[in-house]
Amino acid sequence: MTQANPQDELHNLAMSEAARPLLEKVVRHIRDNCDPALAEYEELGRNREERFAFAPGQLEIIEDLKAKAKAAGLWNFFLPDAETGEGLSNLDYAYIAFELGKNPLAPQSMNCAAPDTGNMEVLERVGTREQKEQWLKPLLNGEIRSAFAMTEPDVASSDARNIGTRAVLENGEWVINGEKYYISGAGDPRCKIMIVMVKTSPDAEPFRQQSQILVPIDWPGVEILGPMNVFGHDDAPHGHMHIRFTDVRVPEENILWGEGRGFEISQLRLGPGRIHHCMRSIGAAEKALDLMIHRGLTREAFGKKIIDLGKNMETISRSRIEIDAMRLMVLKAAKAMDVLGNKEARIWVSKAKAMVPEKCCKIIDDAMQMHGATGISQWSELPEMYMKQRTLRFADGPDEVHHHVIARAERQAFENSNDRQAAIRTRGRRG
Amino acid sequence: MTQANPQDELHNLAMSEAARPLLEKVVRHIRDNCDPALAEYEELGRNREERFAFAPGQLEIIEDLKAKAKAAGLWNFFLPDAETGEGLSNLDYAYIAFELGKNPLAPQSMNCAAPDTGNMEVLERVGTREQKEQWLKPLLNGEIRSAFAMTEPDVASSDARNIGTRAVLENGEWVINGEKYYISGAGDPRCKIMIVMVKTSPDAEPFRQQSQILVPIDWPGVEILGPMNVFGHDDAPHGHMHIRFTDVRVPEENILWGEGRGFEISQLRLGPGRIHHCMRSIGAAEKALDLMIHRGLTREAFGKKIIDLGKNMETISRSRIEIDAMRLMVLKAAKAMDVLGNKEARIWVSKAKAMVPEKCCKIIDDAMQMHGATGISQWSELPEMYMKQRTLRFADGPDEVHHHVIARAERQAFENSNDRQAAIRTRGRRG
Amino acid sequence: MTQANPQDELHNLAMSEAARPLLEKVVRHIRDNCDPALAEYEELGRNREERFAFAPGQLEIIEDLKAKAKAAGLWNFFLPDAETGEGLSNLDYAYIAFELGKNPLAPQSMNCAAPDTGNMEVLERVGTREQKEQWLKPLLNGEIRSAFAMTEPDVASSDARNIGTRAVLENGEWVINGEKYYISGAGDPRCKIMIVMVKTSPDAEPFRQQSQILVPIDWPGVEILGPMNVFGHDDAPHGHMHIRFTDVRVPEENILWGEGRGFEISQLRLGPGRIHHCMRSIGAAEKALDLMIHRGLTREAFGKKIIDLGKNMETISRSRIEIDAMRLMVLKAAKAMDVLGNKEARIWVSKAKAMVPEKCCKIIDDAMQMHGATGISQWSELPEMYMKQRTLRFADGPDEVHHHVIARAERQAFENSNDRQAAIRTRGRRG
Amino acid sequence: MTQANPQDELHNLAMSEAARPLLEKVVRHIRDNCDPALAEYEELGRNREERFAFAPGQLEIIEDLKAKAKAAGLWNFFLPDAETGEGLSNLDYAYIAFELGKNPLAPQSMNCAAPDTGNMEVLERVGTREQKEQWLKPLLNGEIRSAFAMTEPDVASSDARNIGTRAVLENGEWVINGEKYYISGAGDPRCKIMIVMVKTSPDAEPFRQQSQILVPIDWPGVEILGPMNVFGHDDAPHGHMHIRFTDVRVPEENILWGEGRGFEISQLRLGPGRIHHCMRSIGAAEKALDLMIHRGLTREAFGKKIIDLGKNMETISRSRIEIDAMRLMVLKAAKAMDVLGNKEARIWVSKAKAMVPEKCCKIIDDAMQMHGATGISQWSELPEMYMKQRTLRFADGPDEVHHHVIARAERQAFENSNDRQAAIRTRGRRG
Repeated sequence: MTQANPQDELHNLAMSEAARPLLEKVVRHIRDNCDPALAEYEELGRNREERFAFAPGQLEIIEDLKAKAKAAGLWNFFLPDAETGEGLSNLDYAYIAFELGKNPLAPQSMNCAAPDTGNMEVLERVGTREQKEQWLKPLLNGEIRSAFAMTEPDVASSDARNIGTRAVLENGEWVINGEKYYISGAGDPRCKIMIVMVKTSPDAEPFRQQSQILVPIDWPGVEILGPMNVFGHDDAPHGHMHIRFTDVRVPEENILWGEGRGFEISQLRLGPGRIHHCMRSIGAAEKALDLMIHRGLTREAFGKKIIDLGKNMETISRSRIEIDAMRLMVLKAAKAMDVLGNKEARIWVSKAKAMVPEKCCKIIDDAMQMHGATGISQWSELPEMYMKQRTLRFADGPDEVHHHVIARAERQAFENSNDRQAAIRTRGRRG
Repeated sequence: MTQANPQDELHNLAMSEAARPLLEKVVRHIRDNCDPALAEYEELGRNREERFAFAPGQLEIIEDLKAKAKAAGLWNFFLPDAETGEGLSNLDYAYIAFELGKNPLAPQSMNCAAPDTGNMEVLERVGTREQKEQWLKPLLNGEIRSAFAMTEPDVASSDARNIGTRAVLENGEWVINGEKYYISGAGDPRCKIMIVMVKTSPDAEPFRQQSQILVPIDWPGVEILGPMNVFGHDDAPHGHMHIRFTDVRVPEENILWGEGRGFEISQLRLGPGRIHHCMRSIGAAEKALDLMIHRGLTREAFGKKIIDLGKNMETISRSRIEIDAMRLMVLKAAKAMDVLGNKEARIWVSKAKAMVPEKCCKIIDDAMQMHGATGISQWSELPEMYMKQRTLRFADGPDEVHHHVIARAERQAFENSNDRQAAIRTRGRRG
Repeated sequence: MTQANPQDELHNLAMSEAARPLLEKVVRHIRDNCDPALAEYEELGRNREERFAFAPGQLEIIEDLKAKAKAAGLWNFFLPDAETGEGLSNLDYAYIAFELGKNPLAPQSMNCAAPDTGNMEVLERVGTREQKEQWLKPLLNGEIRSAFAMTEPDVASSDARNIGTRAVLENGEWVINGEKYYISGAGDPRCKIMIVMVKTSPDAEPFRQQSQILVPIDWPGVEILGPMNVFGHDDAPHGHMHIRFTDVRVPEENILWGEGRGFEISQLRLGPGRIHHCMRSIGAAEKALDLMIHRGLTREAFGKKIIDLGKNMETISRSRIEIDAMRLMVLKAAKAMDVLGNKEARIWVSKAKAMVPEKCCKIIDDAMQMHGATGISQWSELPEMYMKQRTLRFADGPDEVHHHVIARAERQAFENSNDRQAAIRTRGRRG
Repeated sequence: MTQANPQDELHNLAMSEAARPLLEKVVRHIRDNCDPALAEYEELGRNREERFAFAPGQLEIIEDLKAKAKAAGLWNFFLPDAETGEGLSNLDYAYIAFELGKNPLAPQSMNCAAPDTGNMEVLERVGTREQKEQWLKPLLNGEIRSAFAMTEPDVASSDARNIGTRAVLENGEWVINGEKYYISGAGDPRCKIMIVMVKTSPDAEPFRQQSQILVPIDWPGVEILGPMNVFGHDDAPHGHMHIRFTDVRVPEENILWGEGRGFEISQLRLGPGRIHHCMRSIGAAEKALDLMIHRGLTREAFGKKIIDLGKNMETISRSRIEIDAMRLMVLKAAKAMDVLGNKEARIWVSKAKAMVPEKCCKIIDDAMQMHGATGISQWSELPEMYMKQRTLRFADGPDEVHHHVIARAERQAFENSNDRQAAIRTRGRRG
């Protein structure tokens, strides 16, 4: 990993002057609109028997926030201009994502919620005019939501070559059979369309065998078997659904970009998504740090504030250091995407993805420990935060896959660098 | 911590010949009776709306298992003989506890479930004849269940001196006011009696201020506010309840052993309970190890069995080593209780308690990681196992308190040992 | 630690355009002059009986390199212009320090070796005209070298208040008594002057009790007791000396900046020095990473390249990630010094200092493990690298002191921030 | 790793009654004879120019200690009776080894020093009458010393199949060519004989290709190239030598046990040796723990004893726990060798070997950190202790090899156990 010229743009991690007003508006919108609405929204949703539906009043809250965001010009800003390709840089968006992560209602209020963002970006870049008309338009309008069906229960699908869901072209239709799980957002009653990763071309070379196909969620043969739980929770009404496809037949033109380009499309979408995930994770870690300080200052034992007992101050310091280091690494990855393009930057993205959720889990776990039993109870946000971050160690590829990607690149860089090899000065053996 | 004479009994961690038939009967009972009953029992309890009640059929299953256990002579064997004081050694019981932990129905089927065991032991040792008649007898018969109310939400109650619940003697009655939480088992409709840790004597010396008082759960002024969750789960119908005591008046003679002996009683009960917790934790870690091997052998990625990828084999080895080391440490602590008595052995108990849940969490977490997303889903036992073990890092004192106890003892032992101090050979400074 | 405005200069970690040619000249000088000279220089110095002297020929090599550096304009560039205060920014110098660390002869060949740099900077900023004439001038000319005597064997001198060496003013002379150790560079026969941290004013407030005084190394009463070893090595002829001061009398005007300003002067010098240490440490970690890849690619066991065994690829990835994160943190600390000034930036410096040597030790240790026994032998650079980095976990304050500084600042920032405190949403307790 | 019957002998880790008097005599001998002699012995050896010779007076000290040990009946007790095979159990010897490790002169004073013990044991068990007469007898008499030449610089020789040193039978002589390094003890001028691991039978099955051959150290063709260093130290006069064998011709009958049995002989010797190493490592960790407590109690900073700062108490507790756990694991491994035999017990030995040196390094490193710079200086024993333990992570196989052995056994045990596999309850998938 030779460092680029140290003075070049890659090392400038400051937000652009131009994006600053947007960030400020986002912060204001969250503070003034989203934060006050959250408590009621959550209260309405508590202990619902009908899991995958909204409680009366919930959608009204969301629509109100969306209206306010639109009025403030905070709508779809994640998306580059269709004509010019201009838009927020990844770095600028990373700073904004850090704010978006502070309130769970914020992203969808500005139509920047996953997985819609990735799906819209893909449709914008590789969709046909018809696909855009039918699906991108209502997504951009916030009228429907969407899902991305990649992960499968029966194989290690972080290796795209393992994808088992098959799509066969018959009489102008793709006939899809297979099973997917952890399809996030597919529980939302507003979710109308899925992009499904399938194997279309088993005889092609390994990374040309996959395709992505648009499948409406209510299409015949699509069976939602139920939610996958995360530590026993179903995340309703968003949900991570378990879906079976049995002889699902969609028109040939539902394929995106063409047969065999499924892996390629994945590469497009994953970089930005991972950056945003990571920035939100760091926001969670910041919150955990604040919670541990707060707890440490407000609780006593053995005649001292808890913060002054044992290793607690060092835990705070180590958390602070790791958070700052993570933030720099994520900003660097975002900048790399801006400067080098998604493909070249993918090692930086993997570094961020392999680093962040694991370290965030540790910080949140330390915060729980400093809270005593309250730290795992419903009186604390920490359990939800932990479960969420623990999940991210699998999402978009488990840590191990990213470590492998990084190590392989590092190894190749060493093998390709005469300088690095030459610098391994072999000490003279005696004799 | 000078080692005792290396040849003495403290180092013999083998089960007694005499207890072996009991162990075999327990194993048989679990395998033949409990294991076949579990699936139906759990199925009946799933998704109950009325949380703190049993589903029709559940209690019948339990009663049937209890009858079978009684018939096999497997009843109350945890309790020393009332006359002779003879009974299972802690070491022998530790081996049995390891088996008990394998099936959640097993302990209560043999009337050896927490917190009843500790409560019965306390009543047996310090209860008056009336107390025994009224509460111990039905507990020994398995007719009712019980709870132990120690932990409080507003203070670090691992330091007994912080106990805030007050009991004041007025007209021959204890008047109790305060709040307790994470009172395990208090959700069970069969739970009829609580032993409540209170502060009775604020002017006595620090560890003579506390008392323990018997309070029937349906007594006026006892208000069950609701369950405390663990990572969002209420563990119904057992439950970890949040309870408020408002002017609860119980007769003066409901006190156990006498005013100011509350801390002393705690010391009696905690040792064995922690040992049994730890042995069950180790059972969970063994299960996690088996799950990781199984997953590793049955799933492939990148052309290999997962077990053969990356650090997975080393993770298995490290888990095996730590499990074996934990088991020896827990057996040692049990033996120390047998040979040295609960008080002298308390450092060994703290070592086991500080060591085991933390390491078990790590092993279970590694197993989750090896399972991919399935490892955090409802298709795996691992999330429940993790949440349970994570909780144990707080139960009966957070890790930090045990580490402090251990370090303080070590420091005192050093300060009291001329030999150890003399052996610090000060190297001559030059000059 | 509220983040500054994300778009501001603090986040721009790119080297300045202006400094780039200097960096290039430095790289060229090291590659063309220092690297070819190193082997002979080291060979000459091997197994010398007279430890604290140069072998014949060694000084000639150094002087030759110095001449070449001067000719190339690479001399004293670390020092801001005396008139204008202009000079290399800390950030620019950090990039250069990374290069300087690659060859042990490089720093002194360009007169940028510790501890002279810090001493020269201090003299430049607070020295009197006489002090500059007598000591700064020959130091700037590379004619003599210097030492900084702070650490004491008998107290935890990372807490300046503990400084035990006393200086008392008597008849226009400071009379100094005390003992110092690990005085780096005081073994070098060219070392002529020491800056000695002493306690002059025991009744002043805690951080006004210390002063710094110039003491020629050959002054009466200065006794070099011998070298302090690091893992058994004396680092001759540089050396880390153990020095006793017995009634050492130096003129009153040898004091720097005035009585009671010793702690203040320390603050001036430590920031940049720590940044440069850290950048060199990162260079060592990069080297260790290359060594592990090289070993892994060139050695086989069990039918595979070692790099492909077990966790080795993941170790490489984790090392890569941590190195990149460390580099960003150190650059950030350097930038903070540039933008915020040394004082405000000290938390960032502590973060870098607490983070870097510990993580570098881990990376080097992993590299040793991947080398087998060769990794701890004289055939590898790794043992020296390890011992050096392990030492840095004490130099300029042990890790624990830096963690304490960071945690205290974080805690204060939280206490001072209404926003952060308000964001701790207290969940409603039921009941 | 199914646990054996919990009541059986394998779980009794107490020393035998019979061995207790021996242990007491050993303790007395070390305290009364070895300890007083050590300081002078070490002082005599300091800074010797002729590295691989004893200083005048050193051998006299050793011989005096040997005479005293013999007089006390403390001679060769490690060795089973030649006639009856009776002798100290491995468990009993483990307890003694713990004491032996406390003074570096102790083992050889009682003729129980490595590598002689392993060599004598091998000669006793598989040597011919002539081999015993010529080499075992003087070894048993303490007249000569010996070495074991296994490790090679050019291959990963922890995999016996990689052994590159060749021995070819020509005209009744083995002609040996190859290179060995880290041959411990070969620097001692009293070392007269080596057992050399060679490849004799490249066409046999993998673990029948090796043989062990007796080679006198002063034989023609044996060239001692010099010492291998450990962190820059040569461990003179014991030494870890680098040796080249060039057409070394020894008589055919110098082979041990027969061609192709080299690997088998290794298995004989390694178990006990590893146990003893581990017990000595634990002794070092105990010493480190005492040093950290001592330092913590006698040094102050920030107005407190260092022991009361930050995480230091927890570090002490964690060290205590890990030491106790390690000791139990090593005793268990020793007992396993006694009860199950070396071969069956080898997994337990690997567990001890993989666990102990790594954890001891951590404990010693923590102790260094608590000492500040003194902790890495010549004023502390810690650096030597660290370097020694770090080395043991390679000796007799690097950690990674032991982890692999353990994981493979665990995996096989799982694959062979229907019970364990059946207990993996597959949860019903919905749908």
